Amino acid sequence: MASPSKHRLKRPSWYRRLMQKRLPITKWLPAYNSEKALADIIAGITVGLTVIPQALAYATLAGLPPQYGLYSSFMGCFIYILFGSCKDITLGPTALLALMTYEQIQGRNFDYAVLLCFLTGIVQLIMGLLHLGVLIDFISVPVTVGFTSATSVIIAVSQLKGLLGLQFKSRGFLDTVKKVVVNIPNAKLADTLLGACCIVVLLLMRKIKDVNLPPQQKGLKKALWLLSTSRNAIVVLLCAVMAFLWENNSQSPFKLTGTVKEGLPPLSLPPFGTVVDGKHVTFWEMCAELGSSIVLVPIIGVLGNVAIAKAFASGESVDATQELITLSFANILGSFLSAMPITGSFSRSAVNHASGVATQFGSLYTGILVILALSLLTPYFYYIPKASLAAVIICAVIFMIEYEVVKPMWRSRRADLVPAFATFALCLIVGVELGIVAGVLLNVVLLLYPSARPQLEAEIVTSNSGLSYLLITVGNSLYFPGVEYIRQYVTRAASKQSGNVPVVIDCRYVLGADFTAAKGLCALSNALSSRGQPLVLLSPRACVASVFTGAGSSVHVVLNANELDVSLQELTGQIPLPVIETDPKRVTPPPMYASLAQNEDSLEVIIAEDDKTSPLLTTVHRKKISEVDDT
Amino acid sequence: MASPSKHRLKRPSWYRRLMQKRLPITKWLPAYNSEKALADIIAGITVGLTVIPQALAYATLAGLPPQYGLYSSFMGCFIYILFGSCKDITLGPTALLALMTYEQIQGRNFDYAVLLCFLTGIVQLIMGLLHLGVLIDFISVPVTVGFTSATSVIIAVSQLKGLLGLQFKSRGFLDTVKKVVVNIPNAKLADTLLGACCIVVLLLMRKIKDVNLPPQQKGLKKALWLLSTSRNAIVVLLCAVMAFLWENNSQSPFKLTGTVKEGLPPLSLPPFGTVVDGKHVTFWEMCAELGSSIVLVPIIGVLGNVAIAKAFASGESVDATQELITLSFANILGSFLSAMPITGSFSRSAVNHASGVATQFGSLYTGILVILALSLLTPYFYYIPKASLAAVIICAVIFMIEYEVVKPMWRSRRADLVPAFATFALCLIVGVELGIVAGVLLNVVLLLYPSARPQLEAEIVTSNSGLSYLLITVGNSLYFPGVEYIRQYVTRAASKQSGNVPVVIDCRYVLGADFTAAKGLCALSNALSSRGQPLVLLSPRACVASVFTGAGSSVHVVLNANELDVSLQELTGQIPLPVIETDPKRVTPPPMYASLAQNEDSLEVIIAEDDKTSPLLTTVHRKKISEVDDT
Repeated sequence: MASPSKHRLKRPSWYRRLMQKRLPITKWLPAYNSEKALADIIAGITVGLTVIPQALAYATLAGLPPQYGLYSSFMGCFIYILFGSCKDITLGPTALLALMTYEQIQGRNFDYAVLLCFLTGIVQLIMGLLHLGVLIDFISVPVTVGFTSATSVIIAVSQLKGLLGLQFKSRGFLDTVKKVVVNIPNAKLADTLLGACCIVVLLLMRKIKDVNLPPQQKGLKKALWLLSTSRNAIVVLLCAVMAFLWENNSQSPFKLTGTVKEGLPPLSLPPFGTVVDGKHVTFWEMCAELGSSIVLVPIIGVLGNVAIAKAFASGESVDATQELITLSFANILGSFLSAMPITGSFSRSAVNHASGVATQFGSLYTGILVILALSLLTPYFYYIPKASLAAVIICAVIFMIEYEVVKPMWRSRRADLVPAFATFALCLIVGVELGIVAGVLLNVVLLLYPSARPQLEAEIVTSNSGLSYLLITVGNSLYFPGVEYIRQYVTRAASKQSGNVPVVIDCRYVLGADFTAAKGLCALSNALSSRGQPLVLLSPRACVASVFTGAGSSVHVVLNANELDVSLQELTGQIPLPVIETDPKRVTPPPMYASLAQNEDSLEVIIAEDDKTSPLLTTVHRKKISEVDDT
Repeated sequence: MASPSKHRLKRPSWYRRLMQKRLPITKWLPAYNSEKALADIIAGITVGLTVIPQALAYATLAGLPPQYGLYSSFMGCFIYILFGSCKDITLGPTALLALMTYEQIQGRNFDYAVLLCFLTGIVQLIMGLLHLGVLIDFISVPVTVGFTSATSVIIAVSQLKGLLGLQFKSRGFLDTVKKVVVNIPNAKLADTLLGACCIVVLLLMRKIKDVNLPPQQKGLKKALWLLSTSRNAIVVLLCAVMAFLWENNSQSPFKLTGTVKEGLPPLSLPPFGTVVDGKHVTFWEMCAELGSSIVLVPIIGVLGNVAIAKAFASGESVDATQELITLSFANILGSFLSAMPITGSFSRSAVNHASGVATQFGSLYTGILVILALSLLTPYFYYIPKASLAAVIICAVIFMIEYEVVKPMWRSRRADLVPAFATFALCLIVGVELGIVAGVLLNVVLLLYPSARPQLEAEIVTSNSGLSYLLITVGNSLYFPGVEYIRQYVTRAASKQSGNVPVVIDCRYVLGADFTAAKGLCALSNALSSRGQPLVLLSPRACVASVFTGAGSSVHVVLNANELDVSLQELTGQIPLPVIETDPKRVTPPPMYASLAQNEDSLEVIIAEDDKTSPLLTTVHRKKISEVDDT
């Protein structure tokens, strides 16, 4: 990201470009028209019908009263109209953040959820201002797959309780599984039946939009699609009507949602302090209790949001910073209206996209619908059976279990299955927060492995002038984790050579070096010198050579491959054999192609066997050493 | 390390080699003779005279009664004879580990120090068996410099208390500094004077061995060296005699060491449980209280030991695994004799080396001397003034502050000063343990930076056949942290080109790739395709190409640089212009030198401006794009 001031002189419209970047509404609003408005109204209302049952369900999943889900579902919509950069995204509560919120408010009170929402916004704002979107780059696909799959399993299992009409308190995935199994005999028949029916119906309704119809029946196809898209609302509505009728006959076979507080949430400061068990808890104590989730919830939130944006951006690059800022505003302002942490919802964004949303303005109608629901519909939410909400959640999350990615991953790079499965297992065993941190760390360790154990190859090379030397090719940059390994390898390889055979390190793949490496190779050079073997760095880049010379290193550097022979003869004190004349007036070519340019007239090209052999084209004899590891 | 079984067929002496590796005494003992024995006796006794005052001082530094220092000083000596691989090293208590022990036993009891010693041994054993010596490679020179310098400052400041005869309790470096300043008016004149004198005498005696003498006065030179080497013992002895005489006159101007328990430590199990404030603490509770030091103390111990071994190994490669195993035995067995954690001492190993030690057997005499001291001298230790011990420690640690490394580091690679100073500052502010962990993490983050933000270069290349394409050179491997960045860069660069200009990614420096990268470039390829721009990977290594094909990627791969033109023309649907004939029967050269070998007869060498330009020698026109960042 270039700073705006850089552009001031070159392009007069820098302020407009900044405006369009940071306030994307200025970009699309001027071109708004009635056609787009109609598309937005349809899409917005469709999404609204999806978000209302989901909001109630996710609030329950987070351990909050159902109205909190609705409280969290409108502010994000309004903010996104102004700041959002991707027309398809709709912000609101998600299963993932609900689960992470649940882990924080167990045994505490709802204030923690709202404070977490506020802090999530603050952290996202800081990340946005500091351009810390780079952190998201460190969450790889395997870790994401493992994490979302594990989360889906955890959420699905957590819903078994509501689905079966059980009552127990549990902590963590394994505990929930255990208690579900133990409590199965106590399952309520009515709830279980209702839940099972809901799941079957939801899965069937999910499928009907894929029914193959002749192209002329476009209307029917559209109707089926609408039916399929609003399946959550329909199922929940039908169940609620059923429960209402039963209740009016003074029967209550199902566990119901119960009273949902009516009206809009009060506008108030986020709870910077609360009371738990009659004891006052300060802001800092609350922060300490929220712990790592203050950092993890924002990152996971952005991760999901950016992933969705990328999926719908159809190849346009996504401005992670802008999404961070938008999310931060939505969370900060949301927390003034008792929201829990929110982010972009994949399922609803897909509905939005499929409904043909034209601009970010569609979110307006979603937000209004949620507010209307809060004002008018809350008395009816009382009758929604808990089992039906559980069914809605289960049917949403089971498709997030990404088992189908395992096969391409296996074919592509097996090592990537390690972080994927480790993250999956760890999330299930130690919880999603620790799990993803451990997964990322594991992945970074695997990433660091080539630094610590670079590919090394040793060859005995005999040059045109009859001088033999030990050529070591290092397949990585020279940074601290690998220095000791390289040093030991070279020491072993060198000790197997008789007399004063010089050691040449080919720096072709060395893109950088650090002080530790310089010190290490300096010590190596001293050790080899004491055995009469000079050490030479061949053709290092300028930035690498300067690290070595700056460290006061005693390593010899030969920048031009063609000068190697002469340098080695000087170093070993050998009498130089006649070498091919080179014309000093000629422009010195870059080291890598040096041999080529200068020896053109007596060119002797050795076709190397693989892409790892040296570019020293003057070489007349090579012998690979395979036994270096053999101590 | 190759497994022994690998050698069984090739070399009959594999068991002897394993023996010599894991029980180095079998290597040097057969060649032992009286000459070596004499050298070992002299060196062993000299080291013994150094270790006794140091042990008393370091025990005090660790917050333990003085005899614990001596308890820790003999078992390591005996173990090292059998298992040690470097003749100069002597194991025992060190200032660094004493400080780390002190942080653990503050407000607790001595059992924690002994249990920490046992657990240190266990962890080192596990690390040795799992070949986790690689962990040490992640502690770079800058972090080590920052850490040891900070430790030295902390230790020196902590000794001001004893030096000035002050009495207070403090926690952490900053608190100690504050309390020393506040308490300076209460400083005891006698202690302060004695301490200051000791420091002056110690520093002078340290210098006298460097006095330039004519070569014929060899005897005098040796005497001065001996005087200098045993300066700690001499100063402490003189001070004790002085204090004893005063005490006999019923005067006690100095704070004295006080009663040191006589005799050898009892042989007993390490304390798997203890009693603090009348409350029983179980083994697991003790472990929980020791926390991260269970992992850090062993790693720091090995780090120091391996560093010393390398310093004295004169270039021979050091077997970190063997040193780990030796240290683990010394710590485990030591904990049965009430030792605190031990490792190789740099100062005493230097004395050992300078005394001309011939084999590891020298440690025997050091160990015996310590046992004799415990049996016979403890009554006299009572009179050692605390200020003199403080002076001994201060004079030992101030030379560990490595300010002189800053200059070469600045000249070599300025970025390395960041982890150095950060580690230094963090160790002082938040303590040595958190400090070194944070330093290592920071250094790893800096190491990962090139992965997340690889060097990228965009050029417009017009080939011989008149086809223009956008050539992107990636200066790093394709791993997950950098994919998003590359994707955005390529998207921006491609969007500035008109029409269907193909995009070619030069994989010359790409040594590896992962699934995330494959997925990311696949998405990039799809996005570019939708704009009519094909994406081509040029000359990836086999291991990289397989990652892309395995992921079901839609990216085109051109293995041979010479086929690029034809491939691009096919992809863009352009009518191929006449190209130079290539002989299909010829052996295909490796991609990197392909253009050279095949176009030999019409060779048109472009002298590239720097070492980062492409090897495509068929190029006739290039234009660098510098404005890609400019969004």
